[in-house]
Amino acid sequence: MYKKKINKIKSSMTPSEILILSFIIIITIGTILLSLPVAKLDKSAGVFTALFTATSAVSVTGLSVVDISKTYSYFGKTVILILIQLGGLGIMTFSSILALLIGRKISYEEKKILKEDLNQEALGGIIRFVRKIIYIVLSIETIGAIFLFLSFIKIMPLKKAIYFSIFHSVSAFCNAGFSLFSTGLEGFYGDININLVISFLIILGGIGFAVIDSLIQYIRTKKAKFNLTSKLALIITGILIIVGSITFFIFERKNNLTIGNMSLFNKIIASFFQSVTTRTAGFNTVSMSNLKPATIFMMLIFMMIGASPGSTGGGIKTTTFGVLVFYIIGIVKGQKDINISNRRISWEILNRALVIFAISIIYVLFIIFLILMIEEKDFMKIIFEVVSAFGTVGLSMGITADLSLASKILIIITMLIGRVGPLTFALALGERAKRISYRYPKENILVG
Amino acid sequence: MYKKKINKIKSSMTPSEILILSFIIIITIGTILLSLPVAKLDKSAGVFTALFTATSAVSVTGLSVVDISKTYSYFGKTVILILIQLGGLGIMTFSSILALLIGRKISYEEKKILKEDLNQEALGGIIRFVRKIIYIVLSIETIGAIFLFLSFIKIMPLKKAIYFSIFHSVSAFCNAGFSLFSTGLEGFYGDININLVISFLIILGGIGFAVIDSLIQYIRTKKAKFNLTSKLALIITGILIIVGSITFFIFERKNNLTIGNMSLFNKIIASFFQSVTTRTAGFNTVSMSNLKPATIFMMLIFMMIGASPGSTGGGIKTTTFGVLVFYIIGIVKGQKDINISNRRISWEILNRALVIFAISIIYVLFIIFLILMIEEKDFMKIIFEVVSAFGTVGLSMGITADLSLASKILIIITMLIGRVGPLTFALALGERAKRISYRYPKENILVG
Ligand SMILES: [K+]
Ligand SMILES: [K+]
Repeated sequence: MYKKKINKIKSSMTPSEILILSFIIIITIGTILLSLPVAKLDKSAGVFTALFTATSAVSVTGLSVVDISKTYSYFGKTVILILIQLGGLGIMTFSSILALLIGRKISYEEKKILKEDLNQEALGGIIRFVRKIIYIVLSIETIGAIFLFLSFIKIMPLKKAIYFSIFHSVSAFCNAGFSLFSTGLEGFYGDININLVISFLIILGGIGFAVIDSLIQYIRTKKAKFNLTSKLALIITGILIIVGSITFFIFERKNNLTIGNMSLFNKIIASFFQSVTTRTAGFNTVSMSNLKPATIFMMLIFMMIGASPGSTGGGIKTTTFGVLVFYIIGIVKGQKDINISNRRISWEILNRALVIFAISIIYVLFIIFLILMIEEKDFMKIIFEVVSAFGTVGLSMGITADLSLASKILIIITMLIGRVGPLTFALALGERAKRISYRYPKENILVG
Repeated sequence: MYKKKINKIKSSMTPSEILILSFIIIITIGTILLSLPVAKLDKSAGVFTALFTATSAVSVTGLSVVDISKTYSYFGKTVILILIQLGGLGIMTFSSILALLIGRKISYEEKKILKEDLNQEALGGIIRFVRKIIYIVLSIETIGAIFLFLSFIKIMPLKKAIYFSIFHSVSAFCNAGFSLFSTGLEGFYGDININLVISFLIILGGIGFAVIDSLIQYIRTKKAKFNLTSKLALIITGILIIVGSITFFIFERKNNLTIGNMSLFNKIIASFFQSVTTRTAGFNTVSMSNLKPATIFMMLIFMMIGASPGSTGGGIKTTTFGVLVFYIIGIVKGQKDINISNRRISWEILNRALVIFAISIIYVLFIIFLILMIEEKDFMKIIFEVVSAFGTVGLSMGITADLSLASKILIIITMLIGRVGPLTFALALGERAKRISYRYPKENILVG
């Protein structure tokens, strides 16, 4: 009977509400576990630190008010690891199912019915799909861990190396950016194996499950069948990685506080790695505080764009950015329609992309404004911190721990809203108001 | 026959192309005139300085690479005055006619025909309308000049006071922000008459001609009939002026480098004045370089929003901002439609507002990025400069003159694009490609 009641509440909720509620429940449990004495090495870390860390882990952001490696015990670290895995897998599964449903061209009303009156067959299909995601994700993370182990075993004892390999593989694939090293991966800027494996995991985690699925099918059958979302995600991701690497290299090559003193080869590796990691993973092999303003600015834009839909990453999404870019190209060319890869994009998609863009920018500007009012800190560092939280990136110019309580709370809210998406969040609020406020796009591209 | 040829070229041009071409022609003439020896007090000012000044004047921005008061003679200053008047009147007339046509619910195709095959009656109507605008604008500027004269006559000889009164009245109504004083209006922060008259001129110039027209009719007939665009412009302008004044006062009241040492009354006047002038006029009674980061940030947002459509001001426009705000409120409330003042806003209007917002943000970010790459200057100052140029505001944290040639050229382009509007500009490029790319909104609100 009790269970029935819960089911009734659940079925009256929209998917976005279920997502938001799940995050809040997991964060609450995580906060409690991280507040236990057994979780802590540094007993001075309180409940608020636990809340911040749990939110950062579940939202796979990676911002931190303490040095994780010195503050939490192996139990605490394992709690963080599980929170990352749940957060990363959760968002990937959730958005992949949405993508799948939208891909099938089921209308919004049909989807609602599907959700509310889930019959055995549809439920079975979704369970099989979720099982497939979990299976593939765990396989990739295992392979990643094995490769990382080859590097870690050289510098630490066996058990620690195994633990570190698993932790960093999960953290990389989930685009969490949490590291067990106090200075992130700054000590490994020259380690090819670690740089490539972590980059590979980040890219796979951030490209969207549909692409991974298509890639696996391609390997098996030698036939490529990418849908339009996947194609756009691949194109934009590729362009961003290349452009990011080149600009980072050009701007920083003579900056002795970052990569200036490295060998040419290491400069290239570090530039590539930072380009891959900036959009949403948040690892760093160079210190953020000493970057050139132009580099910082480029990174702000990359953090806002973020990863692809149906992935573990954040931001407004590569496809949203792609639709806007192709739209502007279309205007300048005088085209009547938005055409990507010989297909026409509906105006509803453009509209949704524009709304996501506008709401994200307005939200971020609003939070920056609030924090600027509270803090007496550098303009650029605050902008960087807020955009990093919103894009669930987790890079910081080193001010996270020094923020006031009010600002930290704003960062916590921003990580959560950045994870769920501001449009989804606003819509969930609106749906509470018991009216339908948004007609979902009919076509087969998923933006945001 | 020669005239016929020109008419043929003209009739094959779109309205936006005519607007852009007019600006370019006026800027060219202005540059030539300002390059003449008779125009200069400081003979070292070259053609490029003349180009920058002419563009700034025609686009009614007010940014300057030299001290206008010391660089140009009365002849030169009069050229600048005429450029401001042409730029301000031109854009007000152009956008008011567009607003009028859209208000009459004529379709885009009909408008094209109207334009291409202008019959005597329609032409007569437009000429009467333009004459009316010019008559009202000159009347307002004359009244403004008379009031300013009351203050200026106290501190300077008669002829100079008359000239200064006319110049500042025109500069204020046209939202140009050019001043004949080396430190802008910083010396007049305590002069009530000047503060109120200039504020009044700025608000009238920035509110849009339709509002002025309705106000005049109200004074004559005691009946108010504002259309939705006018209502929204009034609401948003009012809210922005109040919010801007209060936040400026709160942020700066203890800042001794700005208003901290003033009397309470002068603090309030200075805050109100800066709130009014920031959105597009660009006058300042306090120094920009010493403002708090939170104030700077608020001003950046105000500069982006700008004035109302059908006015002399720039920015994305109050109505564009208003539609986005009401849309977000609608989402959170769970409303199906965007409702403003008991009327429903069509999705095409929202779409246009979103496009203007997105293109403006992307353009500004792109220019900031380019200038950050060129200059070794403060992050915040560069952002401020670019946003100020784009919003045709003309406030500066003092870096304009020190920019490199490449950056100055980017600022010139940005003032021009900011004036014409990036969407209009992009569409004009697209229209050159000989295809129709945008279906104009059918409804009766004008955004952007
Ligand atoms: K992250
Ligand atoms: K101005």
